[in-house]
Amino acid sequence: MELAKRLNRLGTETAFAVSAAAAAHAAKGNKVYPLHLGDMNLPTPPSIVEEMRKAVADGFTGYCPGSGIPELRAALAADTGAKRGMSYSADEVSIQPGGKPVIGKFLRAVMDAGDQVLYPNPGYPIYESQIEFQGGVAVPYGFVPDGDGGLSLDLDALSSSITPKTKVLIYNNYHNPTGAVSSRAEMEAVAQLALKNDLWVLADEAYYEVLFDEKATSIAAIPGMRERTVILYTFSKRFAMTGWRLGAAIGPKPVIDVINKLNTNAESCTTHFIQRALVKPLTEEKIETAAIMKTLRERRDAAVAGLQGIEGVKITAPESTFYLFPEVSEVMARKGYNDINRLMDEALSEYDVSFCTRKHFGRPLPGESHQFIRLAYSGIDVPDIHAAIARLKEYFEK
Amino acid sequence: MELAKRLNRLGTETAFAVSAAAAAHAAKGNKVYPLHLGDMNLPTPPSIVEEMRKAVADGFTGYCPGSGIPELRAALAADTGAKRGMSYSADEVSIQPGGKPVIGKFLRAVMDAGDQVLYPNPGYPIYESQIEFQGGVAVPYGFVPDGDGGLSLDLDALSSSITPKTKVLIYNNYHNPTGAVSSRAEMEAVAQLALKNDLWVLADEAYYEVLFDEKATSIAAIPGMRERTVILYTFSKRFAMTGWRLGAAIGPKPVIDVINKLNTNAESCTTHFIQRALVKPLTEEKIETAAIMKTLRERRDAAVAGLQGIEGVKITAPESTFYLFPEVSEVMARKGYNDINRLMDEALSEYDVSFCTRKHFGRPLPGESHQFIRLAYSGIDVPDIHAAIARLKEYFEK
Repeated sequence: MELAKRLNRLGTETAFAVSAAAAAHAAKGNKVYPLHLGDMNLPTPPSIVEEMRKAVADGFTGYCPGSGIPELRAALAADTGAKRGMSYSADEVSIQPGGKPVIGKFLRAVMDAGDQVLYPNPGYPIYESQIEFQGGVAVPYGFVPDGDGGLSLDLDALSSSITPKTKVLIYNNYHNPTGAVSSRAEMEAVAQLALKNDLWVLADEAYYEVLFDEKATSIAAIPGMRERTVILYTFSKRFAMTGWRLGAAIGPKPVIDVINKLNTNAESCTTHFIQRALVKPLTEEKIETAAIMKTLRERRDAAVAGLQGIEGVKITAPESTFYLFPEVSEVMARKGYNDINRLMDEALSEYDVSFCTRKHFGRPLPGESHQFIRLAYSGIDVPDIHAAIARLKEYFEK
Repeated sequence: MELAKRLNRLGTETAFAVSAAAAAHAAKGNKVYPLHLGDMNLPTPPSIVEEMRKAVADGFTGYCPGSGIPELRAALAADTGAKRGMSYSADEVSIQPGGKPVIGKFLRAVMDAGDQVLYPNPGYPIYESQIEFQGGVAVPYGFVPDGDGGLSLDLDALSSSITPKTKVLIYNNYHNPTGAVSSRAEMEAVAQLALKNDLWVLADEAYYEVLFDEKATSIAAIPGMRERTVILYTFSKRFAMTGWRLGAAIGPKPVIDVINKLNTNAESCTTHFIQRALVKPLTEEKIETAAIMKTLRERRDAAVAGLQGIEGVKITAPESTFYLFPEVSEVMARKGYNDINRLMDEALSEYDVSFCTRKHFGRPLPGESHQFIRLAYSGIDVPDIHAAIARLKEYFEK
C-alpha cells in the first residue's frame, strides 16, 4: 500500500511556503510587510456581491452545465472578443473554478506522455509541475535584458529548443513574475514559431486587464493563431475576487469540448450563483474596476520609486501585472551570498519584510548568473510599501 | 496539431445527455417530469445563505489555504469522526470544490498506470472514466439479488477478480444508483478483502447523511481500515447545496497531504467565503436538514408505492440515497424491447417522463440479463411524482 510513483513528478507552488513562513513570523507577534503573494487586499466591487445575493435568492443553488451557464459563456465570449479585436462564440468558452484549472486541463487535452512543452522560466511554477506530472517533457525558455531596463524573451533559445517532439508552447503575456510585456515584434515572433512548428499554444492572459497605460493585445488575434490557441482567463485580478474562484478557458470549439468533458469528470460544474453574479459586471463594468487599477498604479509607483533608491537594486516600472522583479545581483555580491533564499529568509526574520525569489518560479536554468527577487504589491497599502522598502534599503545596503 | 491520444480513454457522465434531451423536449413546449438527475429542487437552508453573506461582508474574498480554512477542516474532522465513532484531526481533511474532485485526486495519489482498481458497476460513471483516463485498469464488481427485494454486492465475483495488480477498491455505501445499503456482514467482508490484499479504499460516502431510518456506519471505522481509507464527503446532499460546490477528502495524513498538493496544482483553493459559511452549520446543524430528509422521505414513499402498482416493475423502498433502481425486465419482455434506452426515449417523447437507465452507470457487464431504470426524486415534488408514475403505469402496462 504505497502512494503512486508518479507523485515524484508532481511539483507545487512553493510561494505558499513563503506565506506559511510569513504567517509563522506574524504569529510570534511581529508585524509582517506582505510583499510575497499575489493576493489582493482590495474588496470585490459591491455590485458583484449584490448580483450574487440576488442569484442565491433567486434559487440558483443547484447544478448548472459543466461548461458553465450560457449567459456567462456568451458574455465572456463577447467581452474577450471585443478586447482582442476578435470574435468568439459562447461554445468556445468553458467556465472554470479559477484560471489555474485551465493549465492542467489544457495539457490533458493536447499533450501526451513524452511530448515536449515549451514554457517560460522564470514563470508560473504550475506550468512546470503539470507538464511533468502529466508525463510531458518541460522545456524552459528564459528572458534576456531588453537594453531598456526590462526583459525580453530569449527568442534564440526558444527557437533552438524546438524539436519534432515539441507539441505545445505556453506563453504568458503579461508575465508573472517579471511584469514583462511583449513588444509587437516579440509576440509576432512567438506566433511565427508556433505556426511554423504546428504547436498548440496556451495563452495565459491572467493579467490581460491589469495593464497601466498600453492597450492590451493577444497572441490569439494574430492570423493563424486563433485555431491553435486557448486563452487562460480569470476574473480574479480584474475584479479583485481571487477567493471566489472563477475563470475560463477560451479557444477553438474542439478543445473547449474536451475541456468541458474534463469539467464533468473533475468537478461537475463551477459554483452556480457565482457565475450568475458576473454576467452583468462583464457587460456593464467600469467605475469599480477603474478604481482597482488606480490603486494598483499608486502602489506600483511607490514601490518602484523606493526600490530605485536602493543601491544595488535594478528595476524599471513594469507596464503590467502587480509584480516587480528587481535584479539584486549587486546586493548579493556585496553580502557575499550565493543563495537568493538566504536574502529572503533574513529579510523576513530580521526586517519583517516577506517576498519571493526567482527560485519560486521554476527550476533555475543552467548558467543563470543574475539574481532576482519578486515583490507583489497587490496585498499591501502605500504606507506599508514605504515602510517595507525603507526596511529593505536598510538591509540591502548594509 | 492533434488532440491528446489519451482522450480515447476519457469517459463522462452520460446522464447529462438525458438532461439535455429533457431540456430539448421541454423547449418544444412540453411539461417534463424530471426523474433523471440527482439535483435537488429544495432551497439551501437560509442560515447557510446568511453565513455566506456575513463572510463576504467580513472580507473573506481573497485566497485561502489550498487545503481549506482551518476552521472548516476542524469542524468537518469533528463531525465526520463523531458520526462514525472515530476520531479525525483537521490535517486529515482536504477541502474540495465538491465531492467529485476526490475521485480523480485520490486516484492520482495512489494509482499508477497499469494498476487495477475494483469499482461498483452499476455505479457512479466517473469511477470508470477516471480509472481508465489515468491509465489504470477498471475492474467492475456487480450486485446480486439479496432475496429480500434489494441488492447485495456480488462478493464472490469481487474476491475472485483480485490479482497481484489490484491496488485500489472503490466502495460506495450508500449506493448510487441502486440505493443499496450494505449489511454489517457485507461491509465487514469488503473490509477483510481490502485488508487481506493490502488495498487502498475510496469510501464514497456522498449519501452518508441521506439515510431514512438506520444509523449510518462507515467502512473506515472497521479496525485496520482507517489508515487505508479516504472518505469522499460532500455538503451537496445533506444541505441541499449541490450548486455551491463544496466537499472534502478525509483520510490518513500522508494521502491528504498529497491531495492538498494536487489542490494547489488544480485550483489553488475552494471558494473562501463558501467554506466559512459551513463552519457553523456543521456544528449547530439540525432543524433545517431534518426538513430536507422529511421531504425526501415523502417523495420516496410516494414514488415507491406508485411503482409497486405497475405490473412488471419490481422495487422495494431503499433505505438511503434519493434514487430508485426498479427492475423492469418484464416490461421490456412484454414490449419485446432489447435496448433499455428505447424505453427511456419513448417515456420522454410520448409520456413526458425523463429518467436514466442502467446504461448511464458504467458499461454493462457481460451476461447481464436483468433490466433496470434509475429514477431520482430529489428534484420533483410529490404531486408531480404521482402524475409521472401514473404516466409510466400507462406506458409500461401498454
